[in-house]
Amino acid sequence: MTENFDSDKYPYINKGLEGIVAFSTTKSFIDGKKGELIFAGYNIDTLAENASFEEVLFLLWNDRLPNQDELNDLKQKLQKQRNLPIAVLNYLRETSSTAQPMAVLRTAVSMLADFYRPVADDEEEDRMNKAIFITAKIPTIVAAFDRIRNGMNVVEPLDDKSTAFNFLYMLNDEEPGEQAEKTMDLCLILHAEHGMNASTFTARAICSTESDMFSSITGAIGALKGPLHGGANEQVIKMLLDIEKQEADPVEYIKERLAGKQKVMGFGHRVYRTMDPRARLLRKESKRLSEETGHEKFYEWSESILKTMKDEKGIDPNVDFFSATVYYSMGIKPDLYTCIFSMSRVSGWTGHYIEQAENNRLVRPRALYTGEKNLDWPPVEQR
Amino acid sequence: MTENFDSDKYPYINKGLEGIVAFSTTKSFIDGKKGELIFAGYNIDTLAENASFEEVLFLLWNDRLPNQDELNDLKQKLQKQRNLPIAVLNYLRETSSTAQPMAVLRTAVSMLADFYRPVADDEEEDRMNKAIFITAKIPTIVAAFDRIRNGMNVVEPLDDKSTAFNFLYMLNDEEPGEQAEKTMDLCLILHAEHGMNASTFTARAICSTESDMFSSITGAIGALKGPLHGGANEQVIKMLLDIEKQEADPVEYIKERLAGKQKVMGFGHRVYRTMDPRARLLRKESKRLSEETGHEKFYEWSESILKTMKDEKGIDPNVDFFSATVYYSMGIKPDLYTCIFSMSRVSGWTGHYIEQAENNRLVRPRALYTGEKNLDWPPVEQR
Repeated sequence: MTENFDSDKYPYINKGLEGIVAFSTTKSFIDGKKGELIFAGYNIDTLAENASFEEVLFLLWNDRLPNQDELNDLKQKLQKQRNLPIAVLNYLRETSSTAQPMAVLRTAVSMLADFYRPVADDEEEDRMNKAIFITAKIPTIVAAFDRIRNGMNVVEPLDDKSTAFNFLYMLNDEEPGEQAEKTMDLCLILHAEHGMNASTFTARAICSTESDMFSSITGAIGALKGPLHGGANEQVIKMLLDIEKQEADPVEYIKERLAGKQKVMGFGHRVYRTMDPRARLLRKESKRLSEETGHEKFYEWSESILKTMKDEKGIDPNVDFFSATVYYSMGIKPDLYTCIFSMSRVSGWTGHYIEQAENNRLVRPRALYTGEKNLDWPPVEQR
Repeated sequence: MTENFDSDKYPYINKGLEGIVAFSTTKSFIDGKKGELIFAGYNIDTLAENASFEEVLFLLWNDRLPNQDELNDLKQKLQKQRNLPIAVLNYLRETSSTAQPMAVLRTAVSMLADFYRPVADDEEEDRMNKAIFITAKIPTIVAAFDRIRNGMNVVEPLDDKSTAFNFLYMLNDEEPGEQAEKTMDLCLILHAEHGMNASTFTARAICSTESDMFSSITGAIGALKGPLHGGANEQVIKMLLDIEKQEADPVEYIKERLAGKQKVMGFGHRVYRTMDPRARLLRKESKRLSEETGHEKFYEWSESILKTMKDEKGIDPNVDFFSATVYYSMGIKPDLYTCIFSMSRVSGWTGHYIEQAENNRLVRPRALYTGEKNLDWPPVEQR
């Protein structure tokens, strides 16, 4: 058996593993042509209309919806687990003022591992507990980090209320209104899971060595941090702010970018060939919120940009395009957007971890070696 | 385009991505039949005989050996970077006493990101500097963590000497002899790189989202932490210690394990069909060291076990089998063995990161969806 083949023997490389089916999953299905997204049986439209983020968590971990007792139990467990270990808070206080939010989240989640107490003798329950432990603490990490870096007091989580409510409360030291909670909850639902993207794939690859859930989620956060994966909505809002600063006409601004072969963020998707169903759902929310909060200008610009992109290039917006204006209307700082993505996507990552652990196979592809072989050792003075 | 295919349309899953060629690389080549391992042109035997770990670092980052000036420059840069930021030392001091060494290393490496100052306007130089920054600090993290957990003072790195020398010095607060330094250096060389294993693959997958090197190496440490990847040599020494504790005959002990269908750690390899060349090189070292340090018993047992496994099952030892006794003879605690693996393999991970970043393509395979679709929403009281 030859590892790292000679190029003449095996010339074909599956670049980016495109088209390669690596796993089977019950977590999500995407029909890019129809613009259809399904989480464990339920269409995203059905979930957006009916579910809470906590129900989606249960769904992605158990492949079915919880009954009332199970849902109450999950909510209580999350509420009990929202607090952070002191060492994590100390890290948030002591780290460099130039630290990036996603880097800090990656470190803090990794550090949580030191403070988890395993459930003895029941692997399945232990996995579920770990998933709750991590999921409950991520919003607290993000909110505490943002307050500390702005010289404000850390707000302790409440021992009741939803994930969405607690996050906004801890971020702003002010109880969110019903509508704000609902909007944040919708954002958490829409970003929860999305096929075999790079971060979910990373989570499964790490799990495949039988490594622990903290390693897997830490790695996934690292993958999401990359601009080709998470981070697009931060770029969208920067573009809108740039239009504002330049006092430009948004349509002309976009046309100029296109003429200069520059990328317009928030458009197109490797999978969807029609409008991303999550963008469709957030578009309504963005309109409503912008009217409520007086950021109507950005919403109107978004609609003009959308029309321009459709007319000029025939491409549709993705979820990042409207989540940018939604988060901005809610007063959340742009460099936290990818952290909010993590707060939500941790549900899919942990769901995939559980699925991988239950039916594991080590992930170990090959590489094509294109270098030289068996070179003689040159003495240092002859190099 | 359909993501997460229907099973009837596309039934084939590449489990574990086995046989799939994901990348081309100039970093290493393995011929499992011949027992041949090559790093960027040079056979492992050539490197073991002639190279220092620092030369191997340069080789894996640049695909060529350094001249004297380049080697001196790299050594100086490593020496300047061995110190840890105070926040990292504080974390090592403050974390839970039950924290696992590999989890702590993962967190500490992730935290380093907050303290790295990027090189402006030269991506290539910035990547090289990051690789030096991370590689230089890992041995300091491992040694400091081990001393702190044992209630001992942290030993500052020296501003000269090799990676191997510094690690042993910081671990033991005592300058190592020439032979100990040479042995540690050999171990670092032998573990530096090894094809498209799960941690290296994880490092490349994270890099493929254009994420930073800290994310990539943090993820790789998480993957190596899994018992199916790193950690086998820790199991080997536990087995030898168990034989000692039970006052068992090693040959009988192994035969019993085989009869009970239990795994004997340190034997067989997914790639090698003959003796792992690294095991062959470490076997000599293990013999020499065991005579020197008076752990001859373990070496003799290793040889009997090797013979028994060959006679009974026809399989050969891998690198973990002899690295276990080598580290044990050097007085290193078994739960640090995988951390030492990381100290070495970071050279391959960073080499692959550089290679991936220079010619990137997002890693995004697919998954086969096997769940249901478009289910109706059941009210909670009907579940």
